[in-house]
Amino acid sequence: MTLSLNQWTTRCWSVAEAVDGCVRHGLEAIGLWRQNVADQGLAESVKLVRDAGLRVSSLCRGGFLTTSGEAFAEALDDNRRAIDEAAELEAACLVMVVGGLPGVRPGEPLAAGASRDLAGARERVAEALSELAPYAGERGVKLALEPLHPIYCPDRAVLSTLGQALDLSLAYPEEQVGVVVDTFHVWWDPRVFEDIARAGRRIASYQVCDYLHPLPEDVLLGRGMMGDGVIDFKPITQAVLAAGYSGDVEVEIFNADVWAADPDEVMATMKARYDEVVLP
Amino acid sequence: MTLSLNQWTTRCWSVAEAVDGCVRHGLEAIGLWRQNVADQGLAESVKLVRDAGLRVSSLCRGGFLTTSGEAFAEALDDNRRAIDEAAELEAACLVMVVGGLPGVRPGEPLAAGASRDLAGARERVAEALSELAPYAGERGVKLALEPLHPIYCPDRAVLSTLGQALDLSLAYPEEQVGVVVDTFHVWWDPRVFEDIARAGRRIASYQVCDYLHPLPEDVLLGRGMMGDGVIDFKPITQAVLAAGYSGDVEVEIFNADVWAADPDEVMATMKARYDEVVLP
Repeated sequence: MTLSLNQWTTRCWSVAEAVDGCVRHGLEAIGLWRQNVADQGLAESVKLVRDAGLRVSSLCRGGFLTTSGEAFAEALDDNRRAIDEAAELEAACLVMVVGGLPGVRPGEPLAAGASRDLAGARERVAEALSELAPYAGERGVKLALEPLHPIYCPDRAVLSTLGQALDLSLAYPEEQVGVVVDTFHVWWDPRVFEDIARAGRRIASYQVCDYLHPLPEDVLLGRGMMGDGVIDFKPITQAVLAAGYSGDVEVEIFNADVWAADPDEVMATMKARYDEVVLP
Repeated sequence: MTLSLNQWTTRCWSVAEAVDGCVRHGLEAIGLWRQNVADQGLAESVKLVRDAGLRVSSLCRGGFLTTSGEAFAEALDDNRRAIDEAAELEAACLVMVVGGLPGVRPGEPLAAGASRDLAGARERVAEALSELAPYAGERGVKLALEPLHPIYCPDRAVLSTLGQALDLSLAYPEEQVGVVVDTFHVWWDPRVFEDIARAGRRIASYQVCDYLHPLPEDVLLGRGMMGDGVIDFKPITQAVLAAGYSGDVEVEIFNADVWAADPDEVMATMKARYDEVVLP
């Protein structure tokens, strides 16, 4: 298990800068975001990580698959492109944030046409997966289903628990579909240790950041540096290890203060806290 | 299944005013809060509801049992008093909000001494229940364990899912310990229908209110009038009915706009929305 920088933790850095930062701070892996890769150029991003000798621990993110009709077809197309990009980058997985209730948008008041059909949205995700998993499998890419904290159920992900994501993954080979364990999203779940053990080698990514208290007004930014919130990381890390996970540990922090800080200082703090509070 | 007013929906009303409001609007039941009962006087509150011919669908609330040492002993004492009050009021149940991580307070920055021991806090709840359930049983009071939305796990309730609350209740007779199904807290849970069926006659209270999107800055106040948020109520009501629940349906709304409105208008809207979106 080694530390990886998810590049949104140092959000102002381009792919080139983040790759350089990883090398400078002695990291072996990096988690990339599609829009940053697009800004840098896919071919150049591939060259940068390869020349630096870094593993790509994940590409973030595919998903947003709960729509229907033309929008659903477009979402599938976009996800196929994301899979192609993950293949080029030889990313360990493509993180899938599956989408919320159709028509419910983050931060925006509920529109008249917003859907309340949660069961239907969840069925749509299963349907999309049956299209995308074989496509990913052919390209050697693993889809990593990320359950998000229930607070994001309306607008970002109708996958709300690790157990639910895991159950969805079981219809596919382990190389095609796995799950993400992200401490922020799962720390509260009374079944999390049982489900981590059950997931075993289905765990495709282990992401860490803390759960701040109180949450800021924009709850998306309630993710903190490890040690700044309420999560007890070591038992979760131990469980993930015991389940057989031997991949990288990505630090992914969405936080206005962290984003405003000097990225090199963030990297230094991240390394120290990783040793102090994340590793068993 | 009949409609009941949880008195915090019309928060500016005293017990006397809320009882009067229920009679005026043709309701048969009311959910009371301990502090309001204390303000009115316990004996007078008992007389008011009896003279009005109302059932007390619940008394809110006992709980906050995750501390240790002297604070734990004090919490047990306070809960015994709450049980005595519920017995006097012949409340259908005493709602238990079990408490969050020790030292983590709602709305306050994380203190240096705050606990991260979630497993320990959950054990403390089980321990407290073994003290309180027999006491409640002797007085004919049913403790209703309320799982709260995971967003409240740090500061209000380490019981986060219906399944978890149900599992905890199973060690006691059905008359002593049951569970609350509150739509706001459980709507997102992929196991909720399975767990409602499993709970069967353990369901001690069915509370309804909507889940607003986006949540307001104070997430405690993210509860809305039914129909104003993202919840599809009818399938949940149907499941609760199918499980054998035949008690009252309490509308419990924590919401700054609802609290600022004319309580009689709130009652009228509540009745209309109950018929329209809650009943199957």
